[in-house]
Amino acid sequence: MVMVRMVEDGAAAPEVQAVFDEIKTARKTDWINNFWKVLAAYPPTLHRIWATVKQVMAPGAIDPLTKEMIYVAVSVTNNCEYCIHSHTAAAKNKGMTDEMFAELLAVVGLANETNRLANGYQIPVDEKFKPKFD
Amino acid sequence: MVMVRMVEDGAAAPEVQAVFDEIKTARKTDWINNFWKVLAAYPPTLHRIWATVKQVMAPGAIDPLTKEMIYVAVSVTNNCEYCIHSHTAAAKNKGMTDEMFAELLAVVGLANETNRLANGYQIPVDEKFKPKFD
Amino acid sequence: MVMVRMVEDGAAAPEVQAVFDEIKTARKTDWINNFWKVLAAYPPTLHRIWATVKQVMAPGAIDPLTKEMIYVAVSVTNNCEYCIHSHTAAAKNKGMTDEMFAELLAVVGLANETNRLANGYQIPVDEKFKPKFD
Amino acid sequence: MVMVRMVEDGAAAPEVQAVFDEIKTARKTDWINNFWKVLAAYPPTLHRIWATVKQVMAPGAIDPLTKEMIYVAVSVTNNCEYCIHSHTAAAKNKGMTDEMFAELLAVVGLANETNRLANGYQIPVDEKFKPKFD
Amino acid sequence: MVMVRMVEDGAAAPEVQAVFDEIKTARKTDWINNFWKVLAAYPPTLHRIWATVKQVMAPGAIDPLTKEMIYVAVSVTNNCEYCIHSHTAAAKNKGMTDEMFAELLAVVGLANETNRLANGYQIPVDEKFKPKFD
Amino acid sequence: MVMVRMVEDGAAAPEVQAVFDEIKTARKTDWINNFWKVLAAYPPTLHRIWATVKQVMAPGAIDPLTKEMIYVAVSVTNNCEYCIHSHTAAAKNKGMTDEMFAELLAVVGLANETNRLANGYQIPVDEKFKPKFD
Repeated sequence: MVMVRMVEDGAAAPEVQAVFDEIKTARKTDWINNFWKVLAAYPPTLHRIWATVKQVMAPGAIDPLTKEMIYVAVSVTNNCEYCIHSHTAAAKNKGMTDEMFAELLAVVGLANETNRLANGYQIPVDEKFKPKFD
Repeated sequence: MVMVRMVEDGAAAPEVQAVFDEIKTARKTDWINNFWKVLAAYPPTLHRIWATVKQVMAPGAIDPLTKEMIYVAVSVTNNCEYCIHSHTAAAKNKGMTDEMFAELLAVVGLANETNRLANGYQIPVDEKFKPKFD
Repeated sequence: MVMVRMVEDGAAAPEVQAVFDEIKTARKTDWINNFWKVLAAYPPTLHRIWATVKQVMAPGAIDPLTKEMIYVAVSVTNNCEYCIHSHTAAAKNKGMTDEMFAELLAVVGLANETNRLANGYQIPVDEKFKPKFD
Repeated sequence: MVMVRMVEDGAAAPEVQAVFDEIKTARKTDWINNFWKVLAAYPPTLHRIWATVKQVMAPGAIDPLTKEMIYVAVSVTNNCEYCIHSHTAAAKNKGMTDEMFAELLAVVGLANETNRLANGYQIPVDEKFKPKFD
Repeated sequence: MVMVRMVEDGAAAPEVQAVFDEIKTARKTDWINNFWKVLAAYPPTLHRIWATVKQVMAPGAIDPLTKEMIYVAVSVTNNCEYCIHSHTAAAKNKGMTDEMFAELLAVVGLANETNRLANGYQIPVDEKFKPKFD
Repeated sequence: MVMVRMVEDGAAAPEVQAVFDEIKTARKTDWINNFWKVLAAYPPTLHRIWATVKQVMAPGAIDPLTKEMIYVAVSVTNNCEYCIHSHTAAAKNKGMTDEMFAELLAVVGLANETNRLANGYQIPVDEKFKPKFD
């Protein structure tokens, strides 16, 4: 059963190829990874996700490496195999060392543990912590 | 139905009070939040979690603010209400601005979206991304 | 906005009241908790879930208290507030002590932590552990 | 390590074979997929799940194709590889086109994103949205 | 502790008010729900999410009511309280009856159950189901 | 791309080898599984997790087999492949029979189903079930 057709770089319709070219330029690479080749089978999603990635992952108040490590933290928590692989690779490209990766996973593991302790005991939120919407 | 008894600061057995005192010193505060008061009802968990938090959240290759934001990212993904509140407060204490929080949530949201696109299409991991264990 | 109408015990149609009566007899109580009153608004689900609960939670190779604690472990991991409350109460009725509850949450917390370490490092499954389907 | 023994179609005990035959008739196929062959090793679960599937997935107020797409949405969110494969195949058999699948994943992705934004900001539920149980 | 400031309809900066006005027109209502008022505190996310919602939730190969029910299915699986409330309301506005809601939850419940049976038994994906990427 | 280097038993630095030796003694085996070999690349996590496992999984108010089955329940709910494999193996070593495993998965499946029914209907917690913190 064919789930989806990958669109190869160089063999894409112009509107798709334009996104591929932009990805390659932005990432200083001549390689398109499977994620984009699969999304390309449905151009509205390809365009939307690439536009979103450009906006959200750009340098801002948080630097790009920290953003990438946050991405890994979410992907690990959700157990998304593809995402763990691709975003760990991206984080390493942006400067994450082996020790930083080890510390990152230690925090992710700990957060997952204490999340369950807080939930399991149904600990009431301290008044001091409660958000106030005004 | 009583789920658990909170142990109040100042009214705790010596081995528990010692942890409370250490928490207050480390955090430069005279306030113990509910999480620790609940864990204190079962001292082995109180001791273990506090020892772990001290080790994992200490400055290292990753700075404490980044670690705290990673903690928030996991707590949001797991929808742990107590943890979102307490770790957002902690991150703000360590310097997270409103704009950093907004960018943090943007990354967490995007990661959760693309995690499902990767899973839904069952995208095969590129050879280049595959970890090699040697 | 009304999401669902609760069907009150004593004011239910005969086919629903029959399930309510069976629940009260089986649990040696004269009280129907909200879960069943909500399901009763759609009788096919009420019948199916009660029949399933009777089969799955009955004494078997695993005793009822252990089954109830496994139920709590899942509910904590999923952060289902209603389920944590109702199944912790059920486990206490079946003999779970405060110390057992504390140990239960310690295991649940640890499992959630190591689950993320295993996923984060993408640790390959040892040949010895791999299931063999024959 | 053998986790479970698959029961093959044609080599099953009568009570199991009866379910296999019913599945083949209902689905107009002569093929039993692994899910049922694995469940068959423990007949109480085989019987219960098949009875449930027949009831829940039958045509009703929601048509069978829509139900199957909802099934895929949940399986993608949970990242259940087997379930994504088998229910995507089932949805295609019931008429899901490639474009519908692409739109389905776009909705699933977006929902996972905004779920985290709502959780992360701990947005209070508008009074207007709150369910009223009467 | 203030987590975020809600921007009220009628008291927003022009670029935000423009989105609020568009939402009201598109939804034929004069009411802005909290989700948008919170996002408005950080305009880049407000603009991005509203543009995405318009694209993804528009009529296409899947009708808007079905898309809304898929949204509810994901929100229930993730236990996002705000999202369950707001998207159930939206689905009811688009024609979901009480019976359809009951069937929807039955499918969501069943999918979550069989997802764990498939994962727990680590059932191998049948060759026939495997996607082929070409 | 090398994600992490496995540290082999017999070729480890003294502080790591000491943990390996302790694991082998405690488990009456001469085999170190991949989980520990991967953690060993970052000794602080290796030491912390092994110390935690020893404390949490030790006999206490809950027996070791029950603790191991609770571990499997969490791992199945999270869909952590490595963890399902390794902890199912551990539970079998501690006496879990095939029938107990089948019952365990039936409870895990049911809990995941009813968790979503409770969440989906947003069932209010009965007063009687609410925890009281004093």
